[in-house]
Amino acid sequence: MKTIEVCLTPELIHQHDLKGKVIVVADIFRATSCIVTGLAAGVKSIRPVGEIEEVKALARQGYIMAGERGGKKVDGFDMGNSPFAYQNTAIKAKKVAISTTNGSAAILKSVEASQVLIGAFLNLESVMEYLIQLTQSVVIHCAGWRGTPNLEDTLFAGALMDEVMEEFTPLGDSASIAHQLYISTHENLSGTALGSSHAKRLINYGMEEDLAFCMETNKYSVVPKLVGEELVI
Amino acid sequence: MKTIEVCLTPELIHQHDLKGKVIVVADIFRATSCIVTGLAAGVKSIRPVGEIEEVKALARQGYIMAGERGGKKVDGFDMGNSPFAYQNTAIKAKKVAISTTNGSAAILKSVEASQVLIGAFLNLESVMEYLIQLTQSVVIHCAGWRGTPNLEDTLFAGALMDEVMEEFTPLGDSASIAHQLYISTHENLSGTALGSSHAKRLINYGMEEDLAFCMETNKYSVVPKLVGEELVI
Repeated sequence: MKTIEVCLTPELIHQHDLKGKVIVVADIFRATSCIVTGLAAGVKSIRPVGEIEEVKALARQGYIMAGERGGKKVDGFDMGNSPFAYQNTAIKAKKVAISTTNGSAAILKSVEASQVLIGAFLNLESVMEYLIQLTQSVVIHCAGWRGTPNLEDTLFAGALMDEVMEEFTPLGDSASIAHQLYISTHENLSGTALGSSHAKRLINYGMEEDLAFCMETNKYSVVPKLVGEELVI
Repeated sequence: MKTIEVCLTPELIHQHDLKGKVIVVADIFRATSCIVTGLAAGVKSIRPVGEIEEVKALARQGYIMAGERGGKKVDGFDMGNSPFAYQNTAIKAKKVAISTTNGSAAILKSVEASQVLIGAFLNLESVMEYLIQLTQSVVIHCAGWRGTPNLEDTLFAGALMDEVMEEFTPLGDSASIAHQLYISTHENLSGTALGSSHAKRLINYGMEEDLAFCMETNKYSVVPKLVGEELVI
């Protein structure tokens, strides 16, 4: 039977054998929610990179510059890490290069897998449907916050597990922990996620609306995939 | 107010600033349960070391040799990692040197803290009472399994948090995850812990009785502490 694993932070991803598996990267607040929103809104492709300087270099090739550090937009960039900015019609059909504190790093640490997908509550059901028709095993890779596990990405991992449980065998205790967390809090999913350390930090920056948007479930039916170095649908 | 953090595996302990804090190491199946049992039963001291060869060197100074690799007793050693062996009257008032897969490493990675304590379900209430009278902040360090988070140690962290919540401010999402896991499973604590990957592995080796013993709550009232290189009460 296909297996499903959960990695609670990119600092533990080396413990998972990614070869031949499909990996779902989740950075709910906010990188993967932005990527799903942007590609659903018609952005041509989104290229995750590690460093601010790489985004600037790509801008010279025509990319829109998106970037965030410590929750705030990088000075001089076109966009930060708010999902609303990714709905802007001015970036439709354009290529975006993005560097964020947690999400970009998690995506770049996932490339050994046979396929890299982008997950968020916004496209939960579509990711679930995609996984169910796979023949490969799956690893859900939580971006966390600065290398530490976080509540919102772990909740997403648990929610996705709950959707696909009948088709996969859970492997490892992180999967059990994430699933149990989701089962016990799903009746107040937003409330639980908004109580996370990172959510409180972003709320202090006045980003409540971003967070509420990121917790909307099944708003989009896209499943972004990494093709070469670009995320596309 | 004093803070309380949870570290889900020794591979993430560098994310916690241990200086000036009290750390509680937990390796429920089975190292910290053995240490609590042994010291409660009259063992003089227990010295955690990393390597099998260090245990052998200490044996030449009169230490009892205890060690486990992959769940099994090291060949030629006096004891493995079963709590029942630590109740043997033959080792009363003796010094024990111990090397285990997960627990010893977690203890040795904790020494930057101002005090290192040993926790298990067996001494949960005594650890709780000890923490409440402290002036310092606390980090609960889960030994996990080969660097990965595990269910039983995370449950212990959640149980201990639940006992001391009124006296400490939780810091970071791993603390929230552990606490929520405990809250939602505490009515079937043993059943949940015995469903962990590591428990299943040990049950396959015929160690059900060890595990049931490790899940007994408040059997002993000792709080082992690291003094120099020796754990004592």
